[in-house]
Amino acid sequence: MEESTHPYIPRDLKLPGYVPVSMSMSSILTIYLSASLFVVSVVWFLFGRKNTKLDKLLMCWWAFTGLTHMILEGYFVFSPEFYKNNTSCYLAEVWKEYSKGDSRYAGRDSAVIAVEGITAVIEGPASLLAVYAIAKGKSYSYVLQLAISLGQLYGCLVYFITAFLEGDNFATNAFYYYSYYIGANGWWVLIPLLISFRCWKKICAAANNVETKPTKKKIR
Amino acid sequence: MEESTHPYIPRDLKLPGYVPVSMSMSSILTIYLSASLFVVSVVWFLFGRKNTKLDKLLMCWWAFTGLTHMILEGYFVFSPEFYKNNTSCYLAEVWKEYSKGDSRYAGRDSAVIAVEGITAVIEGPASLLAVYAIAKGKSYSYVLQLAISLGQLYGCLVYFITAFLEGDNFATNAFYYYSYYIGANGWWVLIPLLISFRCWKKICAAANNVETKPTKKKIR
Repeated sequence: MEESTHPYIPRDLKLPGYVPVSMSMSSILTIYLSASLFVVSVVWFLFGRKNTKLDKLLMCWWAFTGLTHMILEGYFVFSPEFYKNNTSCYLAEVWKEYSKGDSRYAGRDSAVIAVEGITAVIEGPASLLAVYAIAKGKSYSYVLQLAISLGQLYGCLVYFITAFLEGDNFATNAFYYYSYYIGANGWWVLIPLLISFRCWKKICAAANNVETKPTKKKIR
Repeated sequence: MEESTHPYIPRDLKLPGYVPVSMSMSSILTIYLSASLFVVSVVWFLFGRKNTKLDKLLMCWWAFTGLTHMILEGYFVFSPEFYKNNTSCYLAEVWKEYSKGDSRYAGRDSAVIAVEGITAVIEGPASLLAVYAIAKGKSYSYVLQLAISLGQLYGCLVYFITAFLEGDNFATNAFYYYSYYIGANGWWVLIPLLISFRCWKKICAAANNVETKPTKKKIR
């Protein structure tokens, strides 16, 4: 039967016209990591002079996550039939491979599309704006970073809760469950949590300063 | 057939053991509005002395929305079989009635439960904390209000996008679609949008003040 040729769980998921992934996991990962390393290096050296190391690290994160949201996740949102793609297009390969960790991607689960849509269309461009805001020391820098980070956390919550409610049985095997579904997404829980805490503290400190301590010192 | 006794759309939604709503729409609405008016009045007069009118209005909103999140939405999240309830329990009646505007509530759609769960468990208590934060002029007041409002907006986006992706056919008729699904939820788009803009502006103003203009004046 055509439907059973795909490698995804649940086995009865219907994916008529499915074309198997043609790139190896290591090739897909190597391309993603080297492209990301390239972006991070460009940002690091481009904004090297005036900014602190932490600011540069944050700019690297926002550039990396913003491009991931816009390019990778944007492709997923607007390519409902990526699993039929037979051109070895890299972006289709990524999602065919990732669907082994969560078949709701291939299956076009509406909660996944909603979260990915918000991430790609709103949080992606906002992340690139955060790079600019940090570089230029804009007054909205912290509040923008907080807003995007909270959005990423909200998205992860919806993503994990809906999978749990539907039986948490969308991974091909335990390896893909822990490396793709938990491992890859874990970074988008951990880093937004850290950034949220920092920005929250900075914003409260600024509010406190305005209320009680007149000072010209710029908070960092 | 038992399944066809419920009034919801789609007609093939399975709700075995469904007990029809026993209260009238006007009774349900009257109880909700008078309980809300009571809460709003208590907050308005309790925090009457030291706060501006806008602050008092905001505290009323946060008390109203916080209790709605915790009590109404909390009941929904943790009562998967509310549609079988035969005790005329008010909270079950609310959700039986509201399901005429969006049957995904009676049908336990996982995206709806995820959003309502986050709203009831995180945003509900946080909203009550916002009442306290405004009353006491806490430094985290604006950032907390912004965070909750953005959460409410994100939740509404997921709520509307998932319905759209699944065919937008969950209302018993146009009246329920526009009054319950659009009308009732519209307030949780409009007010969080207004609060987000205001808090964003206040936070940026505080950051600007810290950076450039030393002043003892508390921003309002």
